[in-house]
Amino acid sequence: MRARRRETTRGAATAGGEGTRASRYRNLKNPFVPTRVFSDDQVASLHEMALGMLENQGMRVLSPRGRAAFAAAGALVDESTNMVRLDRGLVAKALATVPAEVNLMARNPYRNCRVGGPHVVFAPVAGPPGVLESNGGKHTGTMADFRDFVKLSQAYDVIHVLGQMVEPQDVNIAVRHLETTHAQLTLGDKVPYFYCRGDGQLEDSFAMLRIALGKDEAAFESEAHCYTICNTNSPLQLDLPMTDGILKFASRGQLVIVTPFTLAGAMAPITIAGALTLAHAEALFGITLSQIVRPGTPVMYGSFTSNVDMKSGSPAFGTPEYTKAAFGAGQLARHINVPWRCSSATASNAADTQSVYESQMSLWGALLGGCHFILHAAGWLEGGLTASAEKFMLDVEMLQMFAEIFQPVVATADEVGVAAVAEAGPGGHFFATAHTMERYRDAFYSPLVSDWRNYGAWAADGAKTATQRAGDIARQTIANFQPPPMDQAIAEELTAFVERRKSEGGAPAVS
Amino acid sequence: MRARRRETTRGAATAGGEGTRASRYRNLKNPFVPTRVFSDDQVASLHEMALGMLENQGMRVLSPRGRAAFAAAGALVDESTNMVRLDRGLVAKALATVPAEVNLMARNPYRNCRVGGPHVVFAPVAGPPGVLESNGGKHTGTMADFRDFVKLSQAYDVIHVLGQMVEPQDVNIAVRHLETTHAQLTLGDKVPYFYCRGDGQLEDSFAMLRIALGKDEAAFESEAHCYTICNTNSPLQLDLPMTDGILKFASRGQLVIVTPFTLAGAMAPITIAGALTLAHAEALFGITLSQIVRPGTPVMYGSFTSNVDMKSGSPAFGTPEYTKAAFGAGQLARHINVPWRCSSATASNAADTQSVYESQMSLWGALLGGCHFILHAAGWLEGGLTASAEKFMLDVEMLQMFAEIFQPVVATADEVGVAAVAEAGPGGHFFATAHTMERYRDAFYSPLVSDWRNYGAWAADGAKTATQRAGDIARQTIANFQPPPMDQAIAEELTAFVERRKSEGGAPAVS
Repeated sequence: MRARRRETTRGAATAGGEGTRASRYRNLKNPFVPTRVFSDDQVASLHEMALGMLENQGMRVLSPRGRAAFAAAGALVDESTNMVRLDRGLVAKALATVPAEVNLMARNPYRNCRVGGPHVVFAPVAGPPGVLESNGGKHTGTMADFRDFVKLSQAYDVIHVLGQMVEPQDVNIAVRHLETTHAQLTLGDKVPYFYCRGDGQLEDSFAMLRIALGKDEAAFESEAHCYTICNTNSPLQLDLPMTDGILKFASRGQLVIVTPFTLAGAMAPITIAGALTLAHAEALFGITLSQIVRPGTPVMYGSFTSNVDMKSGSPAFGTPEYTKAAFGAGQLARHINVPWRCSSATASNAADTQSVYESQMSLWGALLGGCHFILHAAGWLEGGLTASAEKFMLDVEMLQMFAEIFQPVVATADEVGVAAVAEAGPGGHFFATAHTMERYRDAFYSPLVSDWRNYGAWAADGAKTATQRAGDIARQTIANFQPPPMDQAIAEELTAFVERRKSEGGAPAVS
Repeated sequence: MRARRRETTRGAATAGGEGTRASRYRNLKNPFVPTRVFSDDQVASLHEMALGMLENQGMRVLSPRGRAAFAAAGALVDESTNMVRLDRGLVAKALATVPAEVNLMARNPYRNCRVGGPHVVFAPVAGPPGVLESNGGKHTGTMADFRDFVKLSQAYDVIHVLGQMVEPQDVNIAVRHLETTHAQLTLGDKVPYFYCRGDGQLEDSFAMLRIALGKDEAAFESEAHCYTICNTNSPLQLDLPMTDGILKFASRGQLVIVTPFTLAGAMAPITIAGALTLAHAEALFGITLSQIVRPGTPVMYGSFTSNVDMKSGSPAFGTPEYTKAAFGAGQLARHINVPWRCSSATASNAADTQSVYESQMSLWGALLGGCHFILHAAGWLEGGLTASAEKFMLDVEMLQMFAEIFQPVVATADEVGVAAVAEAGPGGHFFATAHTMERYRDAFYSPLVSDWRNYGAWAADGAKTATQRAGDIARQTIANFQPPPMDQAIAEELTAFVERRKSEGGAPAVS
């Protein structure tokens, strides 16, 4: 076990091709006091309004098993309308058992990470059906694309977990989960993301993960080893696969992130406070279900509140409203002491300046808002309809910058260098002072994509834009990729599992 | 006077071509609690170290008049080395008279603005010798470029003052100030920026500004009507034109922004705390001089701390160190209760994704740091060596987004729309609810540059990147520009002034 751990570490160190600072990026702590848009009284009032929505109106639950679980716990269930109403006592009881911080255990212990408190995790884009090509064209996602994005996600330490970066539509949906799980488990050693498309697919994925981890069911279920997103269908509806996903993940003690997707003016009230309050009610509802199934199971408060363009109805992301909603969502999550997930997002159709300023507006909203888990942190474009390798690398650059911003600033007299100021003297310079010589090798962030050369040197080298350079880096990272080591017996067992389940026809995707 | 004011307002409303929300952007208040990187004790300790530098080492002052002013106030002046040392009592006495907030009075009262406290001002790029063309080429700045950038700066309400957006090198430097002042005063009605290149040039610019304002010397000097930047030559040196500029601006009661430019690892210690402490000492030194000249004269604490690329020695901007330094500089400025100026900056050679992510990192550092005046907020590229119209518009978009983020979020039950949630019902939508219908026209920020259409519509319309669209908008804004109204007699008097002073040979530029 010890030998294997060491081997794995070497693999991780070489895969990324990053400098000495990269190890800083594995486990991030956000040192900043969260930015607020609401007073404490306002937060309490919004929480009360959300509880009122759940008591008076409730949510429609399309899963009979979900309704039964709620009914058994004392919720008011109307089987004629599928509406489930919760009194505030039931919600309070559930919130009392939610863990404030959660460990995510990877097959490589150096990839373990933690959410909640000061801890922050960055996850790649999830869900795009398409891929944006470097030439500006688009194509439908394939399994080859999926593997490339696993490689990109594995290669950079600032991406802390794996994901469902693109939907591989060249693989039948009944066996797709076998292929995507196999890719996540063999090309990466970080915590994987499994889709909730029915119990059969999840049992397959959990079984494969246990093989990769070398853990039995009891050990697997004692801690979170994977995560999923369960979206509500705003307003006030929880569909079959999402409800059953909460049931399955909670029963196995794996991390479920309950995320209402509330577009203000479309599926939610047109105001920030309104969209957040509806989202809060729906998140409370899903979180309550998780704790009914298994008190203490890890669950996160997901928020995804943005606005539509009122001219066209198109969803917009990384807008000022989005940033303020992130600040507010963080306050609501802290009010109930549940770890909070937010996102980086943009509506841009290209890996251009809009994509970057919208994504960065999202990231600041999330990170200054005190977010613990950023989904879609790298590679998202076009409102989530395409994944882009260029955008992935631009995002990794921004994420590494945030990781550096999180590092504390030292303020001792020695660090200030009062003696160096005396040594340099008026009009002098600090290049050769002892203070500089002791520190210069690792004093500053060394960028991946940014080019700081002067115009002449940059132009002579092809005058490439940052987006072009990002594409070059992505291609190079994929070409140089070395998968993390895995015991031969485990690799064979995983392959055999996939082959067997494929020959059996896989498992139906529930929708 | 009343009629003229109304006329001017119409002019302002038509010049920008912006929507109804634009008027929000004229006077901004930052509602957020500043983000901190230091504890209060650390800030006090850095302040003490800076005072120690001024007491023990002092600064070299190249202006004899500056040294005389310091000596008369009780500073220790060594005329053999030009070194001036300040005891902490002298600094404390000066800080006691600095106004915590300052009004900037424009010729159009609707363009008046305020710095300090919650108030924030955005100023355009200053100083680039070159212009980046839309095709990627570069040329040396001309007076035509200068006028174009005045038009861009005047046209958008979110740019609050004018500036020296590019250096027009097709005009002789002895008369250049006459042309640039004339352009600022006739193409704009916002507060202008004058360079400190000797008393003669400043007296010309002040005289022209008094003509435009219709104010006598006493009225002019009773409030700030223009601003300047006085950079120290870090480390620990104040050159002739900068020292004399502080003397002149302070004696006339105009706003001087004392800004050390401390590149960590080059002209400042290699650490963030060290570069900030040196900058703090130098800023205190210049601020003290301003208050010696005229206690109570408006002055700002300028910070411009970044780092060099230790591989090449090139300056870098918008780095993680830059962002953290901004947070820290804000704390030091608040410690002495002096309004704080910071910057938006990037080292990128193109108006590409790097330029945007670096500039936005700078802006968040400044604005979450509690900055009152952002210089270079629009149009800066290439470490300040080029101005770019494309970048200007991308920055205006980001600044407008920040202006929107500053608007408060309402959290009443009516705003939340509890009734609308009941009306929409589970699985419904909010497009047609009364709550939406009452608010949809002005619910959200309407972007200038961002394109939120779907991929098909965007591709069919030319698949333009955000940078290309920004260039289109800049060209359209310049083409449609209407100068703000000005009394004919005043316009003629200004022209006559310029002609007379040009015929007299202008005034020498002191360097």
